[in-house]
Amino acid sequence: MKRIAVLTSGGDAPGMNAAIRAVVRQAISEGMEVFGIYNGYAGMVAGDIHQLDASSVGDIISRGGTMLHSARYPEFAEREGQLKGIEQLKKHGIEGVVVIGGDGSYHGAMRLTEHGFPAVGLPGTIDNDIVGTDFTIGFDTAVTTVMDAIDKIRDTSSSHHRTFVIEVMGRHAGDIALWSGIASGADEIIIPEEDFAIEDVVESIKKGYEKGRTHNIIVLAEGVMSAAEFGKALKDAGDTSDLRVTELGHIQRGGSPTARDRVLASRLGAHAVKLLKAGIGGVAVGIRNEQMVENPILGSAEEGALFSLTEDGKIKVNNPHKADLNLAELNRSLSSI
Amino acid sequence: MKRIAVLTSGGDAPGMNAAIRAVVRQAISEGMEVFGIYNGYAGMVAGDIHQLDASSVGDIISRGGTMLHSARYPEFAEREGQLKGIEQLKKHGIEGVVVIGGDGSYHGAMRLTEHGFPAVGLPGTIDNDIVGTDFTIGFDTAVTTVMDAIDKIRDTSSSHHRTFVIEVMGRHAGDIALWSGIASGADEIIIPEEDFAIEDVVESIKKGYEKGRTHNIIVLAEGVMSAAEFGKALKDAGDTSDLRVTELGHIQRGGSPTARDRVLASRLGAHAVKLLKAGIGGVAVGIRNEQMVENPILGSAEEGALFSLTEDGKIKVNNPHKADLNLAELNRSLSSI
Amino acid sequence: MKRIAVLTSGGDAPGMNAAIRAVVRQAISEGMEVFGIYNGYAGMVAGDIHQLDASSVGDIISRGGTMLHSARYPEFAEREGQLKGIEQLKKHGIEGVVVIGGDGSYHGAMRLTEHGFPAVGLPGTIDNDIVGTDFTIGFDTAVTTVMDAIDKIRDTSSSHHRTFVIEVMGRHAGDIALWSGIASGADEIIIPEEDFAIEDVVESIKKGYEKGRTHNIIVLAEGVMSAAEFGKALKDAGDTSDLRVTELGHIQRGGSPTARDRVLASRLGAHAVKLLKAGIGGVAVGIRNEQMVENPILGSAEEGALFSLTEDGKIKVNNPHKADLNLAELNRSLSSI
Amino acid sequence: MKRIAVLTSGGDAPGMNAAIRAVVRQAISEGMEVFGIYNGYAGMVAGDIHQLDASSVGDIISRGGTMLHSARYPEFAEREGQLKGIEQLKKHGIEGVVVIGGDGSYHGAMRLTEHGFPAVGLPGTIDNDIVGTDFTIGFDTAVTTVMDAIDKIRDTSSSHHRTFVIEVMGRHAGDIALWSGIASGADEIIIPEEDFAIEDVVESIKKGYEKGRTHNIIVLAEGVMSAAEFGKALKDAGDTSDLRVTELGHIQRGGSPTARDRVLASRLGAHAVKLLKAGIGGVAVGIRNEQMVENPILGSAEEGALFSLTEDGKIKVNNPHKADLNLAELNRSLSSI
Repeated sequence: MKRIAVLTSGGDAPGMNAAIRAVVRQAISEGMEVFGIYNGYAGMVAGDIHQLDASSVGDIISRGGTMLHSARYPEFAEREGQLKGIEQLKKHGIEGVVVIGGDGSYHGAMRLTEHGFPAVGLPGTIDNDIVGTDFTIGFDTAVTTVMDAIDKIRDTSSSHHRTFVIEVMGRHAGDIALWSGIASGADEIIIPEEDFAIEDVVESIKKGYEKGRTHNIIVLAEGVMSAAEFGKALKDAGDTSDLRVTELGHIQRGGSPTARDRVLASRLGAHAVKLLKAGIGGVAVGIRNEQMVENPILGSAEEGALFSLTEDGKIKVNNPHKADLNLAELNRSLSSI
Repeated sequence: MKRIAVLTSGGDAPGMNAAIRAVVRQAISEGMEVFGIYNGYAGMVAGDIHQLDASSVGDIISRGGTMLHSARYPEFAEREGQLKGIEQLKKHGIEGVVVIGGDGSYHGAMRLTEHGFPAVGLPGTIDNDIVGTDFTIGFDTAVTTVMDAIDKIRDTSSSHHRTFVIEVMGRHAGDIALWSGIASGADEIIIPEEDFAIEDVVESIKKGYEKGRTHNIIVLAEGVMSAAEFGKALKDAGDTSDLRVTELGHIQRGGSPTARDRVLASRLGAHAVKLLKAGIGGVAVGIRNEQMVENPILGSAEEGALFSLTEDGKIKVNNPHKADLNLAELNRSLSSI
Repeated sequence: MKRIAVLTSGGDAPGMNAAIRAVVRQAISEGMEVFGIYNGYAGMVAGDIHQLDASSVGDIISRGGTMLHSARYPEFAEREGQLKGIEQLKKHGIEGVVVIGGDGSYHGAMRLTEHGFPAVGLPGTIDNDIVGTDFTIGFDTAVTTVMDAIDKIRDTSSSHHRTFVIEVMGRHAGDIALWSGIASGADEIIIPEEDFAIEDVVESIKKGYEKGRTHNIIVLAEGVMSAAEFGKALKDAGDTSDLRVTELGHIQRGGSPTARDRVLASRLGAHAVKLLKAGIGGVAVGIRNEQMVENPILGSAEEGALFSLTEDGKIKVNNPHKADLNLAELNRSLSSI
Repeated sequence: MKRIAVLTSGGDAPGMNAAIRAVVRQAISEGMEVFGIYNGYAGMVAGDIHQLDASSVGDIISRGGTMLHSARYPEFAEREGQLKGIEQLKKHGIEGVVVIGGDGSYHGAMRLTEHGFPAVGLPGTIDNDIVGTDFTIGFDTAVTTVMDAIDKIRDTSSSHHRTFVIEVMGRHAGDIALWSGIASGADEIIIPEEDFAIEDVVESIKKGYEKGRTHNIIVLAEGVMSAAEFGKALKDAGDTSDLRVTELGHIQRGGSPTARDRVLASRLGAHAVKLLKAGIGGVAVGIRNEQMVENPILGSAEEGALFSLTEDGKIKVNNPHKADLNLAELNRSLSSI
């Protein structure tokens, strides 16, 4: 393979630039040429494709966001768009592509490969909810941003003996809530993977203050409900504390990536290039037990594929990601007072 | 004066601990003893008063919040509460008090002084909306927190060509919005001190994208309206961009104080002690043109007093604080594209 | 076991406080009482031992350093000191101890266990050079501090077209240099685990500028030589660039721990308590493939022991830690220009 | 004036990019065209001059260093170089120039103006040692960087009961040492503007430990002597504490500028453009009492000029900058224990 391309798709995540840099630099060091596809799959279909040299990714390792921009483009689920995209790539002599993003991005990569155009997926999302990898690019940075925010809120919370419900990202996965909650010494962590009784939370808040706590910090994954809803539920269940609710919002997607995310992105980007160079497509790279791994995107669970097709042609996740409930258990022990 | 006390009142602000430390250490270096009053005026009335030595404020200079805690206590507007508070202070042999907080705190200090108990006010609030000082303790930190948040949001905003309305604190004063907006290169800053036409904002967003901007950042002071309301108004006025609204919320009150806030708090705290030592009460300290100054809290505008009484006995601000509109003008020039 | 104690030993590392908090809170949640031993093994022998309750470790999770203080105490290698230490512990009814620190700390834990007093080691050092664990507490924070410093130096380096040699900690292990070097996009990383030719470095600097680099950043582990020596060697070998050398120094040991370090420390601390509760001593806890593990401190390599005794009674490391040379290879590819 | 240019000269400082952005954007909003001169006066003479549009300074407000690069160029003190530089500027139709930098840069600006080419100086240096302004661009960021470093060192210092001598930048001015020392609660601050007796420092360290301090932090401006020399002097004078010395080095010049520096740089840059537009040259802009001011660079002290010529033609500073000794006094009170 002499020419490859790279794109970012879906929600942006800190470290995507570090991954782009790694793809570009590794490709060049392997003797290949490399192109950037701007605005995700939409840009692929539209032909928004430009060559990148080593200096074009200089100093981007420390920047949040993605220099290639990103966009949602549901039309790429259609065969027509896929073939059009491949046509555009072939115009530039491109023979393979690295796709950085989430689940949706992987499906595109799978389709391209099925049409004979090798594509490799690379997990980029703050939510850590992608199969086939222990950690996604951007997760560590998001956890850090949330932890910093909670550290700040704790200052004011403690000064006023207040209870805070802090809503963090995570529609299906409680990973951000769990990690940031433990890291900031939260009193309660509420995640989609676990049931909870609102009465227990009220009781725990009350007991906390009785035992001398100066604040109560509850970290809530958005997938459970909104902070406003949770606050109302607490009041309805009898909470009498001085309660505030807050939604951290979009700051969680931004920021200069952490060291961990930069190193992870660099490793994954370089590994993806090596696979393409060997002619391998239709796989997603990941990190498992601190090692680079790759899994087929589509296939059977037995052969380690991330997704399989149901009888009626729908895409099914073989082993859906779940946050580690040992961490939830750990926090319950450590917040005990 | 041999014994003084210090309290924090109203909303907490980063740098209050640095001010407490300065009061304690300066008092000790002047040969006085110093007491901490916990939970603001409520704690004064309740007698929650404890001696502080030099080491009790060790290493707090870098901490957000207030080690003395704070609380609202509207009852202190009543004469009875004031006299009860003075009685509690006299029990400990305390002869003067430094009150760190906002407008309400100043009124309490004024009343104490009127009852013959010297009190000095010290401006502690993130909003920068206190008369008699160029800057309040906590303002620089809040601006920094907001700027960091906007820097993060810009990453993701730029990756997706999005428009963001970011609501920041400031009920009556646009200072946080102005300073953080300029510091982060915001495209628009909307503050209570200036009128605006929603159609102009829609037009400016549109032109910005036409001229090649990758994002539009609008910083909105909460005193104007909420981010949600502003977003709706934009849409109603014809905005077609990919719009997101976000409220930064309580993180703005927290965090380790900036160098500027720590130095300011240290200077103000030490200056307040020197005034009390000279037997001066009923004044508020501030910084004007980089110098420590003090103003009578109550009196006529001519003698430099911060507040005066109206004929019907209400408290009136003599020269209400207004954000510097030159900064608003500056940002309009610099965001022009 | 009803009563345990915890101490920190050797150089301090960010996250030690989070580990102390986890030991204290987990022990309490398991129904045990827990004591803090101040100033390491010296304090154990001197009886500087005090009970800790849940609130005594409140809010320390975000603080660098160690609230129990640390000290070197080579005298603890002697049997007499060990027995004296156990005597002091028994006075308080303490039946087991968690030792947070580096290799030397582990040897002490092993001796205590040999005398029938169960002790568990927990890896706390920024260098990541402890056997039996993928990561040590403090490593991620140190890497982050170094990365932030290099990001800053790159600003000025780039403005002046300068070459910088940046000396970072790591006497025997190049881990800090490798991770921070990759994370900051260093042009060269020099570590003890790899040979290098100074002429190649000179050549690479020269070629970099020819190809348009605006700066050259060389990250050097202190175990190789000092920055001053390396700078001199470069000049002696013919480097003609505008060269600066800098030693990052003690800031590398401090700072609020990263989220990763706080979570790791929390997990390790809780796990150590569970082992003691089960009566297990003479082992060190660690993280392997994202799982908590424990290894015998002393024994044969086959049974997974970290150290064994040589025939003449000296302590020998069974599988000495080595930095991952794949990362060195990765950086060579990515810095290629 | 229809066309102006901007350059950065001397050591770089955080906020220079914000100043460049302000010059460019303000000029465009005033209807002028604006050019960037790369590599300072050297680039002016060499003709390294390129037009800048509004988007060329997009997103640089948050970056350290200077996008125009900087360089020392003593040759510009010669008339020949000055005339050559003007010739290059005229080739592009440029009629005025903004020079961002320190004293040396101002002298160049003065010479250009004397040759009939209007130039305005703008204070950019971390040292805060430029006449005609209360604060220079980069000072607040440098103080913040030093404060953060001392906060980190205090962690480890306190864990080990150590004394630390921390050398910070400031050859002639103690401003960085004073502000960062107060902000971080340093025990001693040693600056060029004040004499000190090494015996007093030794005594103070000793007393501090006796009274229960867990650490001793001494901040030393490099202009006094090096940290290594100071450490030796302490030992020679009888200090018996566990002493470490550290030089913070080049990190002090880098980093994303603080909010304060970004706002200051924006105001100064815009103000410089307005002066040039009015045909005014030969002056330096500054901030005095929170207001924009301008002073003649050369002239008599009476007319407010920053420099005057001695009889033998040398340049003399009229009112040399001195750090505020009230701050030194303040710290002595606050560190008293």
